[in-house]
Amino acid sequence: MTLSSLFSHELDFIDDDEFHEECGVVGIWTTQDAASLTALGLHALQHRGQEASGIVTYDGNQFHTHRGLGLVGEVFDDPRVIASLPGGMGIGHNRYATTGETQLRNVQPLYGDFEFGGFAVAHNGNLTNAQLLKQSLVRRGCLFQSSTDSEVFIHLIAISLYSNVIDRFIDAIKQVQGAYSLVALSKDMLIAARDPLGVRPLILGKLPYSQDENSWVVASETCALSSMGADFVRDIEPGEVIIIDHDGVRSIHPFADNTSSRFCIFEYVYFARPDSVIENKSVYMARKKIGAELAKESHVEADVVVPVPDSGVPAAIGYAEASNIPFELGIIRSHYIGRTFIEPTDQIRNLGVKLKHATNRAVINGKRVILIDDSIVRGTTSKKIVEMVRAAGAIEVHLRIASPPTQHSCFYGIDTPAEEKLLAHTHSIDEMCKLIGADSLGFVSADGLYRALQEDKRNNQNPQYCDACFTGDYPIPLTDHDMQLVKSK
Amino acid sequence: MTLSSLFSHELDFIDDDEFHEECGVVGIWTTQDAASLTALGLHALQHRGQEASGIVTYDGNQFHTHRGLGLVGEVFDDPRVIASLPGGMGIGHNRYATTGETQLRNVQPLYGDFEFGGFAVAHNGNLTNAQLLKQSLVRRGCLFQSSTDSEVFIHLIAISLYSNVIDRFIDAIKQVQGAYSLVALSKDMLIAARDPLGVRPLILGKLPYSQDENSWVVASETCALSSMGADFVRDIEPGEVIIIDHDGVRSIHPFADNTSSRFCIFEYVYFARPDSVIENKSVYMARKKIGAELAKESHVEADVVVPVPDSGVPAAIGYAEASNIPFELGIIRSHYIGRTFIEPTDQIRNLGVKLKHATNRAVINGKRVILIDDSIVRGTTSKKIVEMVRAAGAIEVHLRIASPPTQHSCFYGIDTPAEEKLLAHTHSIDEMCKLIGADSLGFVSADGLYRALQEDKRNNQNPQYCDACFTGDYPIPLTDHDMQLVKSK
Amino acid sequence: MTLSSLFSHELDFIDDDEFHEECGVVGIWTTQDAASLTALGLHALQHRGQEASGIVTYDGNQFHTHRGLGLVGEVFDDPRVIASLPGGMGIGHNRYATTGETQLRNVQPLYGDFEFGGFAVAHNGNLTNAQLLKQSLVRRGCLFQSSTDSEVFIHLIAISLYSNVIDRFIDAIKQVQGAYSLVALSKDMLIAARDPLGVRPLILGKLPYSQDENSWVVASETCALSSMGADFVRDIEPGEVIIIDHDGVRSIHPFADNTSSRFCIFEYVYFARPDSVIENKSVYMARKKIGAELAKESHVEADVVVPVPDSGVPAAIGYAEASNIPFELGIIRSHYIGRTFIEPTDQIRNLGVKLKHATNRAVINGKRVILIDDSIVRGTTSKKIVEMVRAAGAIEVHLRIASPPTQHSCFYGIDTPAEEKLLAHTHSIDEMCKLIGADSLGFVSADGLYRALQEDKRNNQNPQYCDACFTGDYPIPLTDHDMQLVKSK
Amino acid sequence: MTLSSLFSHELDFIDDDEFHEECGVVGIWTTQDAASLTALGLHALQHRGQEASGIVTYDGNQFHTHRGLGLVGEVFDDPRVIASLPGGMGIGHNRYATTGETQLRNVQPLYGDFEFGGFAVAHNGNLTNAQLLKQSLVRRGCLFQSSTDSEVFIHLIAISLYSNVIDRFIDAIKQVQGAYSLVALSKDMLIAARDPLGVRPLILGKLPYSQDENSWVVASETCALSSMGADFVRDIEPGEVIIIDHDGVRSIHPFADNTSSRFCIFEYVYFARPDSVIENKSVYMARKKIGAELAKESHVEADVVVPVPDSGVPAAIGYAEASNIPFELGIIRSHYIGRTFIEPTDQIRNLGVKLKHATNRAVINGKRVILIDDSIVRGTTSKKIVEMVRAAGAIEVHLRIASPPTQHSCFYGIDTPAEEKLLAHTHSIDEMCKLIGADSLGFVSADGLYRALQEDKRNNQNPQYCDACFTGDYPIPLTDHDMQLVKSK
Repeated sequence: MTLSSLFSHELDFIDDDEFHEECGVVGIWTTQDAASLTALGLHALQHRGQEASGIVTYDGNQFHTHRGLGLVGEVFDDPRVIASLPGGMGIGHNRYATTGETQLRNVQPLYGDFEFGGFAVAHNGNLTNAQLLKQSLVRRGCLFQSSTDSEVFIHLIAISLYSNVIDRFIDAIKQVQGAYSLVALSKDMLIAARDPLGVRPLILGKLPYSQDENSWVVASETCALSSMGADFVRDIEPGEVIIIDHDGVRSIHPFADNTSSRFCIFEYVYFARPDSVIENKSVYMARKKIGAELAKESHVEADVVVPVPDSGVPAAIGYAEASNIPFELGIIRSHYIGRTFIEPTDQIRNLGVKLKHATNRAVINGKRVILIDDSIVRGTTSKKIVEMVRAAGAIEVHLRIASPPTQHSCFYGIDTPAEEKLLAHTHSIDEMCKLIGADSLGFVSADGLYRALQEDKRNNQNPQYCDACFTGDYPIPLTDHDMQLVKSK
Repeated sequence: MTLSSLFSHELDFIDDDEFHEECGVVGIWTTQDAASLTALGLHALQHRGQEASGIVTYDGNQFHTHRGLGLVGEVFDDPRVIASLPGGMGIGHNRYATTGETQLRNVQPLYGDFEFGGFAVAHNGNLTNAQLLKQSLVRRGCLFQSSTDSEVFIHLIAISLYSNVIDRFIDAIKQVQGAYSLVALSKDMLIAARDPLGVRPLILGKLPYSQDENSWVVASETCALSSMGADFVRDIEPGEVIIIDHDGVRSIHPFADNTSSRFCIFEYVYFARPDSVIENKSVYMARKKIGAELAKESHVEADVVVPVPDSGVPAAIGYAEASNIPFELGIIRSHYIGRTFIEPTDQIRNLGVKLKHATNRAVINGKRVILIDDSIVRGTTSKKIVEMVRAAGAIEVHLRIASPPTQHSCFYGIDTPAEEKLLAHTHSIDEMCKLIGADSLGFVSADGLYRALQEDKRNNQNPQYCDACFTGDYPIPLTDHDMQLVKSK
Repeated sequence: MTLSSLFSHELDFIDDDEFHEECGVVGIWTTQDAASLTALGLHALQHRGQEASGIVTYDGNQFHTHRGLGLVGEVFDDPRVIASLPGGMGIGHNRYATTGETQLRNVQPLYGDFEFGGFAVAHNGNLTNAQLLKQSLVRRGCLFQSSTDSEVFIHLIAISLYSNVIDRFIDAIKQVQGAYSLVALSKDMLIAARDPLGVRPLILGKLPYSQDENSWVVASETCALSSMGADFVRDIEPGEVIIIDHDGVRSIHPFADNTSSRFCIFEYVYFARPDSVIENKSVYMARKKIGAELAKESHVEADVVVPVPDSGVPAAIGYAEASNIPFELGIIRSHYIGRTFIEPTDQIRNLGVKLKHATNRAVINGKRVILIDDSIVRGTTSKKIVEMVRAAGAIEVHLRIASPPTQHSCFYGIDTPAEEKLLAHTHSIDEMCKLIGADSLGFVSADGLYRALQEDKRNNQNPQYCDACFTGDYPIPLTDHDMQLVKSK
Repeated sequence: MTLSSLFSHELDFIDDDEFHEECGVVGIWTTQDAASLTALGLHALQHRGQEASGIVTYDGNQFHTHRGLGLVGEVFDDPRVIASLPGGMGIGHNRYATTGETQLRNVQPLYGDFEFGGFAVAHNGNLTNAQLLKQSLVRRGCLFQSSTDSEVFIHLIAISLYSNVIDRFIDAIKQVQGAYSLVALSKDMLIAARDPLGVRPLILGKLPYSQDENSWVVASETCALSSMGADFVRDIEPGEVIIIDHDGVRSIHPFADNTSSRFCIFEYVYFARPDSVIENKSVYMARKKIGAELAKESHVEADVVVPVPDSGVPAAIGYAEASNIPFELGIIRSHYIGRTFIEPTDQIRNLGVKLKHATNRAVINGKRVILIDDSIVRGTTSKKIVEMVRAAGAIEVHLRIASPPTQHSCFYGIDTPAEEKLLAHTHSIDEMCKLIGADSLGFVSADGLYRALQEDKRNNQNPQYCDACFTGDYPIPLTDHDMQLVKSK
């Protein structure tokens, strides 16, 4: 077999072995340039979805839309595109999605012409009764254009018997189950909403430099504020609906019970950008503290602490500080790799081809290495990395994971493999260690993780976070799943 | 003025303020799949040139060429492209270059049909008498197709009166002045050569997994070997010509005097990839040591050491270790930015728009910050970064630079601004500090830099490295420049 | 003013001055390769819409869609596209449409997931109560994705209370007014239907070379049959619904009154391809006969008969034969012109720049020329052509038009300017002649046109054809227009 | 075998069976807007080369180049491209060529930086000693960048020992053999030249609308003048060199013997555009006369005369007039076909798939048909067309060809198959008729062809035209061919 026959359009031997956030959202309410500001915000939220991006604006007279496959910097790099999106109000969306003409239909924001005028919605999260709702909507004659569960919102709004937009919007969200952070735009207002448990993040900021005092931004994370020079105001609360119009910002709490909150703990572990602040906690500092907890819980004698870049770096810094073992960049990550590249054959791959990661032999050779990574999904990347580190001369390789074992699928907006493909679902830690080929393997405990987030421990009666991927404790009913309306992946 | 009128296809407000390596080269001599292996090597050398890439292969019967504008992963991602480059011998080139149809002519490797058959050359470096040679070649009737100085080689070889390829090649390199690491391919042999002072790097490796024992790779840096699972053999020596053919590897030293060596010290500071090893010195470790020297020479009381990513990271780790001040990721770099993106207006920019860098307020706010960067070019980025760090709440910002002040242009293969645009050429350190807005500014000394590279100090009579950009001590005559045959930039 | 400032992306000075057919449709029912056959048919119907094209197939298990902007040969030239459309049943559509991402939503066939399964529709024609229906559908909660009136069909089918597809389809078409030739595909059947007056064409053919006897094609014109080697069976009748399924072909006549028929007479004059046969009349022969009628009605002494190519050619041949004046290609048409090209300034244009047409001086110079064109829209092209012919030395230019003056807009599927922009709406024939600059101007009479179509004369009580564009006699109510629900163009 | 596996990127079953002109050239000398004017001229010459196009301009200070693959309207449709080509002097070139990155090097005009400044050349024709010259140039050290024989000119000029441009140019053309119409541009002058026998056309025109009296255009055909509103001045003579500079137009006749002229007779038959006038003869009228001669020489009883469009139309009109048999458009040609499209399988093809041509059954069915085509190359198209016409119901099909049998390859600038692939080289007329499946087959005689061009007959001692493709009488030595330096195709 020859090398020249080994190319394909998918570099999947590493990428498949990561969790993928499904979306980032931005909303702007000001007097002009909403598209530019939205694009800047989406660029800062690029880590939440790299495959597609879209913006809808309203210029006081009509709505404008542009959506495309690719990075924000690709979809919106042509000045004519931004020029085609005039207006001071806008919403935008980044998506992790597949490619192809058909799939362009799935790129958000979704837009519809309603009796009351145009209406656009962008959604981060996942609904757990979308299929059930869709069945009854289709039966009623509603035509679905996309395969996203987000489209359910727009049909529920369309058929609502209430007369004004806000009532219709609330009517719709009261019928759905699941995790959602939504931004929506009508000709009169910008709406932002979080599900009753606040699983996905959403924050409110203020644009300081507009002539107009009444200039606002909503976004998935605070890093989007920094990108446009906006000031942080506050987190939008679980179950809260924010309405921004010419009279300013109003807040509605349409759900009776909003005592509990179950924010996704994995946002702290992996998804959110390290410079974001969520519920007054710095993501970066949280990761460092997880590293420190891990050092305490899972100590091992070693010469260097090496992160698996980029996501393992803050935990590794925390681990190194807590353990007093030197922190070194023992693995270099290439940032030039695109979505497609030469795929080596098994033969070449086994001989050491590494497109995305390379080892830095100078700090590994002859050393006992503690490798820090954020999580283990299928285990294939971990195995590869451990092999690479050994090949670079490490005499011991101890793998430490800055999260508990991920044993369960997420149904609230994260793209995870089916349970049976999660290594931790089918293997004990010892088995995992053996399979990965490490000298030892340790995970931070659930309580350690909660401590890093300034809790005493996990409150098992009423957990402070959604940690279903670690515990299987799903705080929102999995209606479609239980009715077998969704297929396992 | 509105935001919507402020877009352009150049994001130059930060990128222009960096030095750019001009090239990386790879050569393969084995029995098959040269194109795949070359592409893997070029991918690992992507940091040496991101704008264009090319490969020439020979299949025992004819030569095949593919060259294009873009990253290696873009130019060679289509399997049909690699399939169109059969053969076991090949050379490749990455280029930092401008765009446009016309400029495709400048993408290397250069190829010509000679009396003795096809011949391809790829060049990293810069010739200092290329214009003078070109004048006489044009007068003789030679037609230049590109605007690269590298084309001089191919014409000198074409008109050489010697009969065999090696003699012609040596005839050509004896006429040129400047810095060059060359790889060349004829139907019978792969040639690799370094200029007499060895200004640019070039190494020899071995492909272990081929059936054929006689399988070799030459490349700019050792990181290219790792990418294809090859073993490091040795650095090619200054003034050495390596010939690889069916009989194996031969070495020629055509230059009488090869006692001295003046390797580019800036390769250690900034250009080379941290996991590369040059002349038995790890680039990563060298950078850490520069950081440590800097900590000694330029101490300041502070709370955190923050690197300007990505290039400042190893020096910052070294600085933090030596000074015992915590290392923190206080600046986050976006890796999603492409070559073009929304350019904000001055108004927006001044209000804090940051596309490439974002501050991590959690580790900066209320702190005395030591910022570590590799060098200062025009100073515009430094000024911007210091502003951002202050805006994130730093109470003091001390900028420390892991190289001496760059006061002079490079004529040996690095794209630098004209001297008068280098901040250090026209300003004292105090003036620079004031202009940049830092509380203090320090550079590592020349001797400190040499110490980091395991020398006692700079040998001012016979310097161990080319450090002309710091000292103005140019080891190779600047013939074209002195005759005013090249314009200042 | 300089030439170099005169370029734009629209060559509109001639193209705008033509009528544009809005669509061509194809449907295939056989055992395999529906996509290939549909693409061949659409290619033959390219003259009915050049801006976008789409195909939906069903493979017995699921539906597949591909739609794109451009010619059939552009949208479907990649073999992977056809390969992505498996199955033996399919429908396709060509569209005359505008460009842009947004507008891709308007490219047909339209597709929806219904309670009873997938359903796709392609439509040639125009509905005259679409806006009224849309208003009530939106009020009910239906979400419109496109701005085409065709989308009304799919929502009417979706909300129909009938249980089976055919009943729902008939329920839908009974609610719409206007002109339509439809093809539709469900998982069980291919449906084809014409409006009660049969304004737009639709024919049934048979695929002879399939193993399966039950292999059928429906298409807008017979030329699509030729392209795929199919045999003509018959015209589908006005008001007829054809159902093709595994049991063969069935016919339904859901409309009570189908005594009358008002086929669009302009299909004979201009839209249909000359090799098509409609209602047993060859389009080419009809045009020749129109030319002959014109020669009789509007005789003039002259030396040559020159067609405005390509559409005026058959009428010119007929005119030449009837008048015994030589037929000559005095105007050459460039077929290399694309959708965009250099637009000359007025200055250059007035001096004689002709991108699309060029005169053949050898047959014009010194001659009395009879120019034959199919119609006059705004008159700008006619004026330009007459000028060009005079500039080539014609001593007299007599313009003869192979249709009556077009004084009224079409609301049944042809893209026409608003009435006030039609030259014949605002000018007498004498005024038109003067404005165009011809020595004389003649149109065929309505009766002459009807005679060419083998009628004695126009039956003014019950006209045999729809000729509203000539007569203003609209056979189908213009509901939206009368309620001012559509804007004038 | 299924249809869906039958697609490819070449529609070669018809296109390969035509002769292809290899080039069209344009040169402009005025005060501004040379690029626009050149593009208009190239557009009018699109029939001489559709695969690539290029323009070089000079703005009084520097040269500008843009070259690309595709139609003129594709390569130059972006206003920014024209804006990047400032200046009042320019030359342009259309090319019939293959595709691919490598081949972009072959797109003309060729440009070089010479000792005396920049120099650009565009060439229509073919050199018969190019390989011999190339061998000695390569031996001397000249590097060839393209695989076009045209590059020989530029190297000969580069190495010429003469000091001024004109002397170097004449030095160069005196060394070459073959057919050439050249336009060349230096910073001081526009040069146009035809080979001593004037095989390829070249004409001089005047731009009337410039402020500057001294405004000129040279072009392959007069149709390029019409496109830009220029006036015809005269044919450039065989062996003449025209120099246009700030002093006006000068003429040089550098060749001793210019008594004879051997213009390519096939330009009249097929290549030139019908509205062009060459040597005072209208191409259209010449074709009609050929048709008339054919009617006399090769009479047959029939009902209709049907041209194979588009090239057979004028001859068919001439035939119809002379024979008094009605002229009918019995074959319709699709102008929507691009360079790539669905290629049907043999199965489908044999059943009647016709992408490029369709029959018009209404004028063929039941008729005795005389088909008029311009030439027979391999015969595959003729066979297909005859089959199609029979399938449309013709009871007799008589094929008449408006040129003598093409038995020999062209070496003077036309892309022809090797002799052994020319049907007429290996078959008698009877055999051809049988193979093609016609009822009778007739070609115009050589003398008939000459009569149509207003000669009494062919002067066999000293033929008035180059008719080597019919007679094998090659007026210019075939040096490379005789020395076997060129491969047969």
